[in-house]
Amino acid sequence: MCDICFAERGDKAAVETGSYLMPKYDSDGLIVAVVTDFETNEVLMVGYMNGEALKRTLSTGEAWYWSRSRQAYWKKGETSGQVQTVREVRTDCDQDALVLKVTVGGNGGTCHVGYRSCFFRKVDKSVSGDVRLVRTEQEKVSASIRST
Amino acid sequence: MCDICFAERGDKAAVETGSYLMPKYDSDGLIVAVVTDFETNEVLMVGYMNGEALKRTLSTGEAWYWSRSRQAYWKKGETSGQVQTVREVRTDCDQDALVLKVTVGGNGGTCHVGYRSCFFRKVDKSVSGDVRLVRTEQEKVSASIRST
Repeated sequence: MCDICFAERGDKAAVETGSYLMPKYDSDGLIVAVVTDFETNEVLMVGYMNGEALKRTLSTGEAWYWSRSRQAYWKKGETSGQVQTVREVRTDCDQDALVLKVTVGGNGGTCHVGYRSCFFRKVDKSVSGDVRLVRTEQEKVSASIRST
Repeated sequence: MCDICFAERGDKAAVETGSYLMPKYDSDGLIVAVVTDFETNEVLMVGYMNGEALKRTLSTGEAWYWSRSRQAYWKKGETSGQVQTVREVRTDCDQDALVLKVTVGGNGGTCHVGYRSCFFRKVDKSVSGDVRLVRTEQEKVSASIRST
Protein backbone atom coordinates (compact mmCIF):
# COMPACT_ATOMS: atom_id res chain seq x y z
CA MET A 1 0.00 0.00 0.00
CA CYS A 2 1.06 3.51 -0.68
CA ASP A 3 -0.83 6.76 -0.82
CA ILE A 4 0.65 7.65 -4.18
CA CYS A 5 1.72 4.90 -6.55
CA PHE A 6 3.32 5.07 -9.96
CA ALA A 7 2.52 2.33 -12.44
CA GLU A 8 5.32 0.10 -13.67
CA ARG A 9 6.78 1.19 -17.02
CA GLY A 10 4.54 -0.30 -19.67
CA ASP A 11 5.07 -0.80 -23.36
CA LYS A 12 5.70 2.06 -25.78
CA ALA A 13 2.03 2.79 -26.34
CA ALA A 14 1.23 2.78 -22.63
CA VAL A 15 4.10 5.18 -21.90
CA GLU A 16 3.56 7.53 -24.83
CA THR A 17 -0.19 7.85 -25.00
CA GLY A 18 -1.56 5.97 -21.98
CA SER A 19 -3.37 7.19 -18.89
CA TYR A 20 -0.92 6.23 -16.13
CA LEU A 21 2.08 8.10 -14.83
CA MET A 22 5.13 5.85 -15.34
CA PRO A 23 8.11 8.09 -14.70
CA LYS A 24 11.44 7.16 -16.24
CA TYR A 25 14.42 8.00 -14.07
CA ASP A 26 17.97 8.47 -15.31
CA SER A 27 20.96 6.44 -14.13
CA ASP A 28 21.03 8.54 -10.95
CA GLY A 29 17.36 7.81 -10.25
CA LEU A 30 16.28 11.32 -11.20
CA ILE A 31 13.75 12.94 -13.51
CA VAL A 32 14.08 16.51 -14.74
CA ALA A 33 11.37 18.97 -13.69
CA VAL A 34 10.83 22.21 -15.61
CA VAL A 35 9.20 24.76 -13.35
CA THR A 36 6.98 27.38 -14.99
CA ASP A 37 4.85 30.25 -13.76
CA PHE A 38 1.21 29.14 -13.72
CA GLU A 39 -0.01 32.46 -15.10
CA THR A 40 2.59 33.31 -17.74
CA ASN A 41 4.22 29.93 -18.55
CA GLU A 42 7.61 31.59 -18.05
CA VAL A 43 10.31 29.05 -17.20
CA LEU A 44 11.51 29.80 -13.67
CA MET A 45 13.99 27.00 -12.95
CA VAL A 46 14.95 23.44 -13.75
CA GLY A 47 15.17 20.97 -10.88
CA TYR A 48 15.50 17.23 -10.42
CA MET A 49 13.30 14.81 -8.49
CA ASN A 50 13.61 11.23 -7.43
CA GLY A 51 10.48 9.15 -6.89
CA GLU A 52 10.14 10.21 -3.26
CA ALA A 53 10.46 13.93 -4.09
CA LEU A 54 7.78 13.50 -6.76
CA LYS A 55 5.49 11.74 -4.28
CA ARG A 56 6.03 14.49 -1.71
CA THR A 57 5.24 17.09 -4.38
CA LEU A 58 2.03 15.36 -5.46
CA SER A 59 0.85 14.63 -1.94
CA THR A 60 1.59 18.06 -0.43
CA GLY A 61 0.97 20.28 -3.46
CA GLU A 62 4.28 22.03 -2.82
CA ALA A 63 7.43 21.36 -4.84
CA TRP A 64 10.13 19.09 -3.47
CA TYR A 65 13.36 18.31 -5.30
CA TRP A 66 16.48 16.24 -4.91
CA SER A 67 19.52 18.46 -4.66
CA ARG A 68 22.27 16.89 -6.72
CA SER A 69 24.94 19.12 -5.17
CA ARG A 70 23.88 18.48 -1.58
CA GLN A 71 22.53 14.96 -2.17
CA ALA A 72 19.51 15.76 -0.04
CA TYR A 73 15.80 16.44 -0.30
CA TRP A 74 15.07 20.09 -0.84
CA LYS A 75 11.73 21.75 -0.32
CA LYS A 76 11.92 24.90 -2.42
CA GLY A 77 11.28 27.94 -0.26
CA GLU A 78 11.81 26.23 3.08
CA THR A 79 14.24 28.90 4.18
CA SER A 80 13.45 31.72 1.72
CA GLY A 81 9.65 31.58 1.77
CA GLN A 82 9.66 31.17 -2.03
CA VAL A 83 7.48 28.08 -1.72
CA GLN A 84 6.13 26.73 -5.01
CA THR A 85 2.46 25.85 -4.89
CA VAL A 86 1.99 23.30 -7.65
CA ARG A 87 -1.09 24.01 -9.73
CA GLU A 88 -0.49 21.43 -12.44
CA VAL A 89 2.00 18.67 -13.26
CA ARG A 90 2.52 17.46 -16.81
CA THR A 91 4.68 14.78 -18.32
CA ASP A 92 5.95 14.27 -21.85
CA CYS A 93 5.55 11.49 -24.38
CA ASP A 94 8.33 9.27 -23.06
CA GLN A 95 7.65 10.29 -19.45
CA ASP A 96 11.26 11.20 -18.69
CA ALA A 97 10.51 14.86 -17.99
CA LEU A 98 7.98 16.84 -15.97
CA VAL A 99 6.56 20.34 -16.19
CA LEU A 100 5.35 21.93 -12.95
CA LYS A 101 3.09 24.94 -13.24
CA VAL A 102 3.49 26.81 -9.97
CA THR A 103 2.57 29.91 -8.03
CA VAL A 104 5.59 31.25 -6.15
CA GLY A 105 5.20 32.42 -2.55
CA GLY A 106 7.23 34.88 -0.50
CA ASN A 107 8.69 37.71 -2.56
CA GLY A 108 7.85 35.89 -5.80
CA GLY A 109 11.45 35.15 -6.69
CA THR A 110 12.93 31.82 -7.65
CA CYS A 111 16.61 32.34 -8.32
CA HIS A 112 19.12 32.29 -5.47
CA VAL A 113 20.94 35.29 -6.92
CA GLY A 114 17.81 37.39 -6.49
CA TYR A 115 15.93 37.29 -9.77
CA ARG A 116 12.38 36.17 -10.50
CA SER A 117 13.57 33.45 -12.87
CA CYS A 118 16.85 31.56 -12.89
CA PHE A 119 16.86 32.18 -16.66
CA PHE A 120 17.56 35.90 -16.32
CA ARG A 121 20.24 36.00 -19.05
CA LYS A 122 19.93 35.50 -22.77
CA VAL A 123 22.56 34.83 -25.38
CA ASP A 124 23.70 37.93 -27.23
CA LYS A 125 24.94 37.00 -30.67
CA SER A 126 25.83 40.53 -31.65
CA VAL A 127 29.38 40.19 -30.34
CA SER A 128 31.86 37.91 -32.09
CA GLY A 129 34.18 35.54 -30.26
CA ASP A 130 33.07 34.09 -26.92
CA VAL A 131 29.31 33.93 -26.60
CA ARG A 132 28.05 36.79 -24.44
CA LEU A 133 25.05 36.93 -22.12
CA VAL A 134 22.84 39.91 -21.38
CA ARG A 135 20.35 40.28 -18.57
CA THR A 136 16.66 40.09 -19.32
CA GLU A 137 15.59 41.07 -15.80
CA GLN A 138 16.89 44.43 -14.68
CA GLU A 139 15.41 44.45 -11.19
CA LYS A 140 16.04 41.87 -8.53
CA VAL A 141 13.11 40.80 -6.38
CA SER A 142 15.50 40.43 -3.48
CA ALA A 143 19.09 41.16 -2.65
CA SER A 144 19.48 37.84 -0.87
CA ILE A 145 22.26 35.59 -2.05
CA ARG A 146 20.58 32.47 -0.75
CA SER A 147 17.05 31.80 -1.83
CA THR A 148 16.83 28.05 -1.43
CA MET B 1 39.95 29.85 -33.89
CA CYS B 2 36.32 28.94 -33.89
CA ASP B 3 33.26 30.76 -35.13
CA ILE B 4 31.44 30.22 -31.86
CA CYS B 5 33.42 29.83 -28.66
CA PHE B 6 32.29 29.18 -25.12
CA ALA B 7 34.32 30.64 -22.30
CA GLU B 8 36.00 28.27 -19.85
CA ARG B 9 34.00 27.74 -16.66
CA GLY B 10 34.88 30.60 -14.36
CA ASP B 11 34.40 31.09 -10.64
CA LYS B 12 30.98 31.07 -9.00
CA ALA B 13 30.35 34.78 -9.62
CA ALA B 14 31.37 34.56 -13.27
CA VAL B 15 29.06 31.60 -13.84
CA GLU B 16 26.08 32.86 -11.88
CA THR B 17 25.97 36.53 -12.78
CA GLY B 18 28.64 37.05 -15.43
CA SER B 19 28.38 37.98 -19.09
CA TYR B 20 29.84 34.91 -20.78
CA LEU B 21 28.18 31.65 -21.71
CA MET B 22 30.04 28.87 -19.86
CA PRO B 23 27.86 25.80 -20.29
CA LYS B 24 28.14 23.00 -17.74
CA TYR B 25 27.71 19.54 -19.23
CA ASP B 26 26.72 16.44 -17.29
CA SER B 27 28.79 13.27 -17.07
CA ASP B 28 27.58 12.34 -20.57
CA GLY B 29 28.70 15.70 -21.96
CA LEU B 30 25.12 16.96 -22.30
CA ILE B 31 23.13 20.01 -21.21
CA VAL B 32 19.34 19.99 -20.93
CA ALA B 33 17.42 22.31 -23.26
CA VAL B 34 13.84 23.31 -22.46
CA VAL B 35 12.06 24.28 -25.67
CA THR B 36 9.25 26.81 -25.40
CA ASP B 37 6.92 28.53 -27.84
CA PHE B 38 8.24 32.03 -28.53
CA GLU B 39 4.77 33.58 -28.43
CA THR B 40 3.11 31.74 -25.53
CA ASN B 41 6.05 30.41 -23.47
CA GLU B 42 4.37 26.99 -23.50
CA VAL B 43 6.86 24.18 -22.93
CA LEU B 44 6.97 22.08 -26.11
CA MET B 45 9.69 19.52 -25.38
CA VAL B 46 12.87 18.83 -23.46
CA GLY B 47 15.98 17.89 -25.41
CA TYR B 48 19.68 17.48 -24.79
CA MET B 49 22.65 19.10 -26.49
CA ASN B 50 26.35 18.55 -26.46
CA GLY B 51 28.69 21.43 -27.21
CA GLU B 52 28.62 20.80 -30.95
CA ALA B 53 24.80 20.69 -31.09
CA LEU B 54 24.69 23.98 -29.18
CA LYS B 55 27.17 25.54 -31.61
CA ARG B 56 25.15 24.34 -34.59
CA THR B 57 22.01 25.77 -33.00
CA LEU B 58 23.60 29.15 -32.36
CA SER B 59 25.28 29.38 -35.74
CA THR B 60 22.33 28.25 -37.86
CA GLY B 61 19.43 29.63 -35.79
CA GLU B 62 17.71 26.25 -36.00
CA ALA B 63 17.63 23.75 -33.15
CA TRP B 64 20.00 20.80 -33.12
CA TYR B 65 20.08 18.17 -30.37
CA TRP B 66 21.98 15.08 -29.39
CA SER B 67 19.70 12.05 -29.44
CA ARG B 68 20.52 9.96 -26.38
CA SER B 69 18.60 6.97 -27.72
CA ARG B 70 20.19 7.04 -31.17
CA GLN B 71 23.54 8.52 -30.06
CA ALA B 72 23.50 10.87 -33.01
CA TYR B 73 23.00 14.52 -33.91
CA TRP B 74 19.40 15.33 -34.56
CA LYS B 75 18.13 18.41 -36.32
CA LYS B 76 14.56 18.75 -35.16
CA GLY B 77 12.21 18.77 -38.14
CA GLU B 78 14.68 17.42 -40.64
CA THR B 79 12.23 14.74 -41.75
CA SER B 80 8.95 16.13 -40.40
CA GLY B 81 9.33 19.77 -41.39
CA GLN B 82 8.76 20.77 -37.75
CA VAL B 83 11.96 22.83 -37.78
CA GLN B 84 12.49 25.01 -34.72
CA THR B 85 13.61 28.53 -35.56
CA VAL B 86 15.38 29.72 -32.44
CA ARG B 87 14.35 33.24 -31.47
CA GLU B 88 16.10 33.40 -28.11
CA VAL B 89 18.40 31.23 -25.98
CA ARG B 90 18.62 31.66 -22.23
CA THR B 91 20.70 30.01 -19.56
CA ASP B 92 20.19 29.71 -15.82
CA CYS B 93 22.26 30.79 -12.85
CA ASP B 94 24.57 27.79 -12.77
CA GLN B 95 24.55 27.46 -16.57
CA ASP B 96 23.63 23.79 -16.57
CA ALA B 97 20.32 24.29 -18.39
CA LEU B 98 19.10 26.19 -21.44
CA VAL B 99 15.75 27.59 -22.52
CA LEU B 100 15.13 27.89 -26.27
CA LYS B 101 12.29 30.13 -27.39
CA VAL B 102 11.30 28.88 -30.80
CA THR B 103 8.87 29.21 -33.67
CA VAL B 104 7.87 25.81 -35.00
CA GLY B 105 7.69 25.22 -38.75
CA GLY B 106 5.73 22.70 -40.77
CA ASN B 107 2.38 21.81 -39.24
CA GLY B 108 3.35 23.49 -35.96
CA GLY B 109 3.60 20.26 -34.03
CA THR B 110 6.48 19.10 -31.88
CA CYS B 111 5.59 15.72 -30.43
CA HIS B 112 6.20 12.55 -32.43
CA VAL B 113 2.82 11.16 -31.40
CA GLY B 114 1.12 14.06 -33.16
CA TYR B 115 0.47 16.74 -30.55
CA ARG B 116 1.59 20.35 -30.51
CA SER B 117 3.52 19.86 -27.26
CA CYS B 118 5.14 16.71 -25.93
CA PHE B 119 3.57 17.69 -22.59
CA PHE B 120 0.03 16.90 -23.70
CA ARG B 121 -0.94 15.04 -20.50
CA LYS B 122 -1.40 16.32 -16.97
CA VAL B 123 -1.59 14.48 -13.70
CA ASP B 124 -5.12 13.85 -12.52
CA LYS B 125 -5.19 13.60 -8.76
CA SER B 126 -8.92 12.97 -8.57
CA VAL B 127 -8.47 9.20 -8.78
CA SER B 128 -6.91 7.27 -5.90
CA GLY B 129 -4.30 4.56 -6.41
CA ASP B 130 -1.95 4.76 -9.37
CA VAL B 131 -1.44 8.30 -10.60
CA ARG B 132 -3.58 8.92 -13.68
CA LEU B 133 -2.92 11.19 -16.65
CA VAL B 134 -5.47 13.12 -18.68
CA ARG B 135 -4.94 14.77 -22.04
CA THR B 136 -4.73 18.52 -22.24
CA GLU B 137 -4.70 18.62 -26.04
CA GLN B 138 -7.73 17.04 -27.63
CA GLU B 139 -6.76 17.55 -31.26
CA LYS B 140 -3.63 16.25 -32.89
CA VAL B 141 -1.89 18.51 -35.36
CA SER B 142 -0.92 15.46 -37.36
CA ALA B 143 -1.63 11.77 -37.41
CA SER B 144 1.99 10.97 -38.07
CA ILE B 145 3.68 8.60 -35.69
CA ARG B 146 7.13 9.87 -36.48
CA SER B 147 7.73 13.60 -36.22
CA THR B 148 11.47 13.75 -35.67
